Amino acid sequence: MATRQATTTWDGDLAKGQGTTSVGSSAFGPVEVSWPRRAGDAEGTTSPEELVAAAHASCYAMAFSNELAQAGATDIHLEVTAAVTLEVGDAGANITTDALTVRGRASGIDEAAFRQAAEAAKQGCPVSKALTGVDITLDAALQ
Amino acid sequence: MATRQATTTWDGDLAKGQGTTSVGSSAFGPVEVSWPRRAGDAEGTTSPEELVAAAHASCYAMAFSNELAQAGATDIHLEVTAAVTLEVGDAGANITTDALTVRGRASGIDEAAFRQAAEAAKQGCPVSKALTGVDITLDAALQ
Repeated sequence: MATRQATTTWDGDLAKGQGTTSVGSSAFGPVEVSWPRRAGDAEGTTSPEELVAAAHASCYAMAFSNELAQAGATDIHLEVTAAVTLEVGDAGANITTDALTVRGRASGIDEAAFRQAAEAAKQGCPVSKALTGVDITLDAALQ
Repeated sequence: MATRQATTTWDGDLAKGQGTTSVGSSAFGPVEVSWPRRAGDAEGTTSPEELVAAAHASCYAMAFSNELAQAGATDIHLEVTAAVTLEVGDAGANITTDALTVRGRASGIDEAAFRQAAEAAKQGCPVSKALTGVDITLDAALQ
């Protein structure tokens, strides 16, 4: 069991306020966050959606590497991008989609088995299983 | 609508492989990720769970600031910590809990209204609504 934490300090209201987020590992940051930079142009500022994308890309890459190795693949190299969308409208603010794009190289596996492992990783990755409120899509190809 | 993305490059299998995660904004990183540093001691390394915690703390702080302002509060200062737990066992690897701890100061609001706004933010924050596969708990107090 591993527990990881992060803390955001925030001053002000949503529209004009600003926050700073620090992570327990100190691997990065502290980083600034604000609503205008989240809902509009990022201008070099991270956001909850970008952090979810980073979590999912990291988690998916691990899960997929495991599926591939279990399927007999070696010399695994993966590039995983997650694109997470926030929509703001009549239904409030919602994270609606999370699009995974996966390109990989590996020895000892064909395209069909690669795609099957990619789908298994999409189902089994802990972050996928946490994000059940989001429509997750997958585009995977062996290069 | 705002789409944010992150990319993880990964080499090797799960146990011995290693990844590097970059975010589109370049607000931080690239950061290293690996399974041993995720499931065991972090040793200064971030992880999917820490990134989920950073996403949730950031999102919750924004949502709560909005609820408080709508309830008439001013001079809002919040400190939000999210602690996200990965459990690895017979059921595989799962993100089981996400514990929010919120401490705040604000003018023009009493403890009951503060707690009511905190609960509303827990329900309405886009990251909360995305993480429906996780048991989210809330401990909120006005200081």
